[in-house]
Amino acid sequence: MPDNSDKHFNLYEKERKKVDKRLGSLLTKRKPASLYQPGSYILESSGKRLRPLLVLFSGRAVRGKLEKAYNAAMAVELLHNFTLVHDDIMDNADMRRGLATLHKKYDTNTAILAGDGLLSVAYECLIKDISNSNSKNILAAFTKGLVEVCEGQSLDKDYELREIVSLKEYILMIRKKTAAMIEMCCTIGGLLGGGSKKEIQALSKFGKNIGIAFQIQDDLLDIVGDQKKFGKLVGGDLIEGKKTFLLVKSLELAKGKDKAKLLKVIKNKGIRKNQVNEYKELYNKLGVIEVARDEIKRYTKNAMNQVKKLKRKSDRELFNWVADFLLSRKK
Amino acid sequence: MPDNSDKHFNLYEKERKKVDKRLGSLLTKRKPASLYQPGSYILESSGKRLRPLLVLFSGRAVRGKLEKAYNAAMAVELLHNFTLVHDDIMDNADMRRGLATLHKKYDTNTAILAGDGLLSVAYECLIKDISNSNSKNILAAFTKGLVEVCEGQSLDKDYELREIVSLKEYILMIRKKTAAMIEMCCTIGGLLGGGSKKEIQALSKFGKNIGIAFQIQDDLLDIVGDQKKFGKLVGGDLIEGKKTFLLVKSLELAKGKDKAKLLKVIKNKGIRKNQVNEYKELYNKLGVIEVARDEIKRYTKNAMNQVKKLKRKSDRELFNWVADFLLSRKK
Repeated sequence: MPDNSDKHFNLYEKERKKVDKRLGSLLTKRKPASLYQPGSYILESSGKRLRPLLVLFSGRAVRGKLEKAYNAAMAVELLHNFTLVHDDIMDNADMRRGLATLHKKYDTNTAILAGDGLLSVAYECLIKDISNSNSKNILAAFTKGLVEVCEGQSLDKDYELREIVSLKEYILMIRKKTAAMIEMCCTIGGLLGGGSKKEIQALSKFGKNIGIAFQIQDDLLDIVGDQKKFGKLVGGDLIEGKKTFLLVKSLELAKGKDKAKLLKVIKNKGIRKNQVNEYKELYNKLGVIEVARDEIKRYTKNAMNQVKKLKRKSDRELFNWVADFLLSRKK
Repeated sequence: MPDNSDKHFNLYEKERKKVDKRLGSLLTKRKPASLYQPGSYILESSGKRLRPLLVLFSGRAVRGKLEKAYNAAMAVELLHNFTLVHDDIMDNADMRRGLATLHKKYDTNTAILAGDGLLSVAYECLIKDISNSNSKNILAAFTKGLVEVCEGQSLDKDYELREIVSLKEYILMIRKKTAAMIEMCCTIGGLLGGGSKKEIQALSKFGKNIGIAFQIQDDLLDIVGDQKKFGKLVGGDLIEGKKTFLLVKSLELAKGKDKAKLLKVIKNKGIRKNQVNEYKELYNKLGVIEVARDEIKRYTKNAMNQVKKLKRKSDRELFNWVADFLLSRKK
């Protein structure tokens, strides 16, 4: 269990509710409804608002005023939802967070445009509270996050078509697809809060490292997670034939029959539900679950080394909690 | 014929080539190729680069240095191409500028992501040359253009599903879908060039009005244009059942049999090629071709009244030429 000390969890809950409330009313009155109503649909389907919280907490960690960071916090959530909508179309996903994906609820054209609309409003929100002195850096950081998430998604699509992907390539992909946006949230919070160059750098590095750990953890939980709490089918990534950390690393380590067995996941574009356990055993035999745990530890340690650089003890404690919360969110 | 005085046309050609050259090398070296190569494909399929030119000429009209405006000029072209790629998916269009559309050349998923990539790089370019003093206004203008083009596309999609659209609604749609981006180009050029508030306002209003005239002219040329120069089938909009200025206005004016005939275009989602002439005659009978010409004149006059406010005679002459060029581009 993470350190759910009332103090930190209550702060998170308080801020999450504020962000939720603002997001809830952001699009509902805008016209045309055909553009913004589907956007509202995806925004309302809850989610933990981890990215907005990272903006707000990073601003706090450099002694900035939270009030000035809510628009940017909404902007990163809008950007995140833009990626979900377009990625779900590309992945032909039916469900997201227990609800029909946007393109299934409406149609693909509506979803393409709703995604574009979410991104547009993201920039609109971001611009609201920036001042002339920090605007260029904030816009550059946000746009870098956007560029990288597009590049990461493109790599992810590329890898789907390839038989073998190296671990290095896999890490590059999750760095761009997942970690870059987490990093960006921390950077923007630090910039908005008026942090020093060193402080902002520490926050950025924290975000990048915890973002990589977060994604490897996500891959790991597919195999070792508790289905009830995890909310997804155990082994779902294997069933879909996804090239996760575990599969990529296994393919690097395995030989002979084991390798052939793993290559079948790729060739057949997934496995049957009743095969999950034998693949889980193979992962254990090859030791990749331990490798994944070690990598998560390593990236988390890198992240925590940056937290040490924060000036106030209360912020260091808050970011310790944030790291725990991010990594245990689905346990 | 427009006033193709060598002077203005040569300036346009000179600047167009510079923009083309920069755009040509912008994406080719970027990775992953799966994201940027399709983007290069659409960017290279030429086009007149009208929007970049409006940025550059607007900067010039307020005595700004052109050198500082090329990145913004590329940004507006990238944004424009982003809209083309996503709109072509939604319209299920096979061809654009005589080539296969991006989603036909590649596939829909590639096109969605390539469009997202173009928009991301648009912001990246835009940010490059902004200074702290003007960055917020430039970003706000660009983002307003993006939001409006999404809203305009959504209205366009809404109207496709409706039987009757009022002329007022039609004008709102083209204002957002076409004119807002032309307006934005002029605003950004003025801001980058360091123009006064009055000058920028004049440029913006010029863009908005000439943009509306430009779209009505586009609708008109579908019927009265020379197929060879126009490059499209005469009556193509009627064949596709598009709710153009002419069809919308005709439906407002027609009664009895004429109205029934026009409603058939909507109900049958278009007409046959051999019916174009009889509908052209009906448009003539109802006088909507004259109405369209009058509206183009009216919006062009509004635009030219703004040009009068430019300080230097040479800029007023340039913008006279620009207006002529925009409106006669397909004659």
